[in-house]
Amino acid sequence: MYTELNTSNRILMGPGPSDAHPRVLKAMSTPLIGHLDPEFVSIMDEVKSMVQKTFLTQNHLTFVVSAPGSAGMETCLVNLLEPGDEIIIGVNGVFGGRMTDIAERCGAKVHKIEKQWGDIITVEDVKKVLNICPKPKLLALVHAETSTGALQPIKEISDLVHNAGGMLMVDAVTSYCGVELRVDDWDIDAIYTGTQKCLSAPPGLSPVSFSDRAVQALENRKTKVQSWFLDLSLVKNYWGGSKRAYHHTAPVSSVFALRESLRIVLEEGLESRWERHNAVHQVLKAKLEKLGFKYLVEEQHRLPNLNSVFLPNGNDEALIRNKLLKDYNIEVGGGLGDFAGKIWRIGIMGESCTLNHVNMLISALEDMNEFKGV
Amino acid sequence: MYTELNTSNRILMGPGPSDAHPRVLKAMSTPLIGHLDPEFVSIMDEVKSMVQKTFLTQNHLTFVVSAPGSAGMETCLVNLLEPGDEIIIGVNGVFGGRMTDIAERCGAKVHKIEKQWGDIITVEDVKKVLNICPKPKLLALVHAETSTGALQPIKEISDLVHNAGGMLMVDAVTSYCGVELRVDDWDIDAIYTGTQKCLSAPPGLSPVSFSDRAVQALENRKTKVQSWFLDLSLVKNYWGGSKRAYHHTAPVSSVFALRESLRIVLEEGLESRWERHNAVHQVLKAKLEKLGFKYLVEEQHRLPNLNSVFLPNGNDEALIRNKLLKDYNIEVGGGLGDFAGKIWRIGIMGESCTLNHVNMLISALEDMNEFKGV
Repeated sequence: MYTELNTSNRILMGPGPSDAHPRVLKAMSTPLIGHLDPEFVSIMDEVKSMVQKTFLTQNHLTFVVSAPGSAGMETCLVNLLEPGDEIIIGVNGVFGGRMTDIAERCGAKVHKIEKQWGDIITVEDVKKVLNICPKPKLLALVHAETSTGALQPIKEISDLVHNAGGMLMVDAVTSYCGVELRVDDWDIDAIYTGTQKCLSAPPGLSPVSFSDRAVQALENRKTKVQSWFLDLSLVKNYWGGSKRAYHHTAPVSSVFALRESLRIVLEEGLESRWERHNAVHQVLKAKLEKLGFKYLVEEQHRLPNLNSVFLPNGNDEALIRNKLLKDYNIEVGGGLGDFAGKIWRIGIMGESCTLNHVNMLISALEDMNEFKGV
Repeated sequence: MYTELNTSNRILMGPGPSDAHPRVLKAMSTPLIGHLDPEFVSIMDEVKSMVQKTFLTQNHLTFVVSAPGSAGMETCLVNLLEPGDEIIIGVNGVFGGRMTDIAERCGAKVHKIEKQWGDIITVEDVKKVLNICPKPKLLALVHAETSTGALQPIKEISDLVHNAGGMLMVDAVTSYCGVELRVDDWDIDAIYTGTQKCLSAPPGLSPVSFSDRAVQALENRKTKVQSWFLDLSLVKNYWGGSKRAYHHTAPVSSVFALRESLRIVLEEGLESRWERHNAVHQVLKAKLEKLGFKYLVEEQHRLPNLNSVFLPNGNDEALIRNKLLKDYNIEVGGGLGDFAGKIWRIGIMGESCTLNHVNMLISALEDMNEFKGV
């Protein structure tokens, strides 16, 4: 009645997941071991240390949430916010909006910096809202806005919020291991990411790191964290400490896969990986523009790994996107929100970031009768 | 610096994870497809239908939480409880205690039925607390208490709580697909489970089902669910509805594995699987008792698949347990809470429920100089 799993061999060039390396798939199919087995505890230690290296941080409170990136976002917010706390959130796409929704569920007072989708949050924007809310507990930014392909500068805003006595929280789901990201140098207090973008591991886990300043804030909480599953006062004893305390059962196989994907990143080198994403982006960009695609985001604020583009006039985006999937097994992403039906989001992330991927996509479009280039 | 993943070939006979079938591991290593790919949407539909079959329910709101069983527990509680709601919780082990912790974080008024660990909650216990709290919104029970090995009768208590106008919530993490469990016949309103016990899939997901009565309660909420990630008003549009709405990125590979493990359960037949767990339990029990082990739980309330036993006098449980792991690659579980250092929890779940598993364990103990049988 239910047949054997029989999926098509997709080429993943959407907003994630990206293609996984065969080594990662192989690691994930390793027979299980217990989640409190000394061998698994060692693996957790190694993963923690590799996450520190890839975040470029020494933060002691670095760990992996046993759920996807959205749960990493919620982990940061529910642990750092208490009812009545003030937070400034940059909203220039889906994920700033999501942070707002979660922060409100925490009972926080949210000050939104609303910008057009595709724009970034500027230093001036932040200064303006600091006039209204001079002592925020937290300021939250999306480093790489997956809904628009905008790359948010972090460092200057980090200085501003710290001078105001607040902390900086960053969504790095789509930037992690694909573009420059320096947690310690940029003085980021809370950061979360996902595994299925430039890391090229399967989706399902969310690496997270908290600075000492953020740990201090956790220790000074007056109320219990509203989520038990995401409460770091419990999770931190599972991911470290002198004695591992059982909290929940870690997704053993996904952690195996994460470990292998991190190993691959460190073999390549973090900076070489950033350079590769940029170099392949330049090739993709030239070829897309030649076909008549136009970028949504201004050149200096563009993510290299997620290319949000308007199709040349006269094209039915859904028809062509479906044909790419059906006839060529190539997945690209459609638009979200106001951009649904208007843009494509073309991901070149991790294992999907190769010249061959670019050429497969461009050639398929050139071949296709339905696609009208310029 | 970080070597290739190199784990020992464990025989998993603890409280979970259990051994995974090679078919499940193979399914999990299938190359990724997008989480909004029409092929993945079909897979989600199939998984939903197989979860309904294995829960023995027609509940429309049946889905899989993208996180382990504890998050399934939190999903049920945060969606059904609002501040001030009254809940009765049976606390006779770790997991009733965890439900209490979460319910309190929801602002609910908790009435605990506290029993000794290893005991069950009786009909009389429930009648007594219904005198104090005659109109609870929810009554929560742990069907299979993983910390003690007790199997909780459900049906009669279900009638009691429904007669009082309340709903019944059940933790089926360790019972699902291992012992009799009938969601519709027993009129259970909210149930959650895990994948890593009698289903023998890797840990990381939590199948959940809500009755129409529970759906009605969701629709009548006056406040927003405190968790965004677990908010069923959002999740339900991702797992069904006329149009799939993006919520988070599903753990694609884990869903592949879940699908294959469910297929294996349905091939065996749910009732045959329950019978297998009981038959292997009888053999294990006879052999353990011959060696001098004594069960914690009274015979009529014993879980077949999780055997909580005191070692024969004069044995150092940690020493023998560690030797079993080191020399024989066999994992059994230690005790939790007051039973730490006192009992073992021997799991025979799913693929770990075979006569060969029993014989490997018993023979290893017989061989071992350090083990003192009677």
